[in-house]
Amino acid sequence: MIPFAVIGIDHRHCYTMAAHIQSAGGRLVGWATDGEPGTLDGWVRRFPDAPRRAAADLLTDPEVALILTAAVPCDRPGIAVAALEAGKHVLSDKPGALSRAQLDEIRAACTRADRHWAVDFSERFEVPGVTRADALVRDGAIGEVLDVTLLAPHRLNAATRPDWFWDRGRNGGILADIGSHQIDQVLHFAGTDEAQIVLAEADCLLRPPFQDRGRIALRAGRATGTILLNWFTPDGLPTWGDGRLFLTGTRGTIELRKYVDPAGQPGTDHVILVNDAPPERIDAAGDPLPFFSAFLCGLDGPLGPHPFKVTELAIRAQEMAEC
Amino acid sequence: MIPFAVIGIDHRHCYTMAAHIQSAGGRLVGWATDGEPGTLDGWVRRFPDAPRRAAADLLTDPEVALILTAAVPCDRPGIAVAALEAGKHVLSDKPGALSRAQLDEIRAACTRADRHWAVDFSERFEVPGVTRADALVRDGAIGEVLDVTLLAPHRLNAATRPDWFWDRGRNGGILADIGSHQIDQVLHFAGTDEAQIVLAEADCLLRPPFQDRGRIALRAGRATGTILLNWFTPDGLPTWGDGRLFLTGTRGTIELRKYVDPAGQPGTDHVILVNDAPPERIDAAGDPLPFFSAFLCGLDGPLGPHPFKVTELAIRAQEMAEC
Repeated sequence: MIPFAVIGIDHRHCYTMAAHIQSAGGRLVGWATDGEPGTLDGWVRRFPDAPRRAAADLLTDPEVALILTAAVPCDRPGIAVAALEAGKHVLSDKPGALSRAQLDEIRAACTRADRHWAVDFSERFEVPGVTRADALVRDGAIGEVLDVTLLAPHRLNAATRPDWFWDRGRNGGILADIGSHQIDQVLHFAGTDEAQIVLAEADCLLRPPFQDRGRIALRAGRATGTILLNWFTPDGLPTWGDGRLFLTGTRGTIELRKYVDPAGQPGTDHVILVNDAPPERIDAAGDPLPFFSAFLCGLDGPLGPHPFKVTELAIRAQEMAEC
Repeated sequence: MIPFAVIGIDHRHCYTMAAHIQSAGGRLVGWATDGEPGTLDGWVRRFPDAPRRAAADLLTDPEVALILTAAVPCDRPGIAVAALEAGKHVLSDKPGALSRAQLDEIRAACTRADRHWAVDFSERFEVPGVTRADALVRDGAIGEVLDVTLLAPHRLNAATRPDWFWDRGRNGGILADIGSHQIDQVLHFAGTDEAQIVLAEADCLLRPPFQDRGRIALRAGRATGTILLNWFTPDGLPTWGDGRLFLTGTRGTIELRKYVDPAGQPGTDHVILVNDAPPERIDAAGDPLPFFSAFLCGLDGPLGPHPFKVTELAIRAQEMAEC
């Protein structure tokens, strides 16, 4: 069991991130957070046995091997660097950093401390249907992936959002924030960490200066990646967003309806495969989520470039959109 | 009954275009085509009573009020200009022109002759589900349209394609050709004929120099438009392409699965509406196709800018992608 702690529970992603690390072999030894975020009650309900402790106490506790953070986005890089310097590995909610300078500091701290920093791209790592899509691609079911298209609408939930959600300086902007999820998927399915951003847009339409629509186009090897983001999920949708992943390969296609099949089948993780054979629908809701145990097992190995590359591209996209 | 003729049946779009004009009140008085295109047998089977005549004969026949053309794309502008100069209206298969110079000639000929030129954007005008999406948008079902996204895969059917299909000089390129369909839809649903192209790409992946993947990003008023094109429809799909239209509005979304609901419901024209109410599925296969009668009724009215604007943008996109 790997003892871990959580510093910053401001985004509700803390719930599933901590739960998945527990399931993968982590033991939650304590948590810290600033003030009383709206996520607090839900956190205590989910993790009633873990004690609230001071962040400094967790950072100096020699038992703690790993720090998770879902703090306010602008605070995550500082928490990550402090944790790395204290000899802990770090798993951050996305976005993991909001500027190149922050990312450089994290990278340098990883090198100095010989510790890992990773980002929980939950729209891949916490979606069983992606596991299935991944397996199908790896097995050659659609040939070489030539296009990755992501529709990523999110529900605004304006009434329950904390102050920092509305503040570009603290949330990082729509591309750095929810865009990083999708950049992760483009790189993953394109099979490369090298990509060029050929278009990046962030628009403030309904509640300026809040960025509520974003678009990113990438080229990654032979594949194109197209990302459409917004905060316009309609009230009637029974979940937070009708997230879709479309993969086009040399000999087939995969569509993943991640969280809902609107006016269609019940449940989540609907994979639709078409190749030489007729269209096939696969219920992938029971597929495993291998990221978390792979992350824990890999902590003794070399530091991978992927979360750095994704975060760098997301920051670059945000810069391009705002220049 | 408006007497019309067809000059050039090289693309099989001639079948439905002529049939729809017949249904809307046209009377086919004859047709001409160069040589023996692969579409000839199918044409004669569908229109056994219409005589094959010389193109010059049709152009000088005072009875003929309208010329349709689905000739090889590079030949369409010349046919259109000749028809206009002979005092006929013109309805062209897309693409209607492959260069700005051709488009300028058509526009000038329309003005001189006081005749109409239009393009049959069949992926809108011949799709009943678009009629329904249109009605829903007009009725305010999703509020103001803020994004139009089109997935437009097409089946290559390599074995049955004529020479000109593979020749950039004669087909106009993937963006000018099948891209023009989608640009039409972006402008239509954005409610404007003014748009900026912010990204245009045409890639030759599997059979260079044939362009088999394209991408266009537009901004049209407050709306964004994203167009993904390819010739990669897998063999197992029971139709030529899994064309999708996604509309995102201020208070709802519409997805249209135009030609197939893969591994889902049978039939075509599946409209999925989500707004304040829960997701609703609408079978729109029986909806009317109002374009053709509106076109015939409008021939006495002023010439609209729409087909010119679409074609201009498609040509511009093709130029940007190849520069």
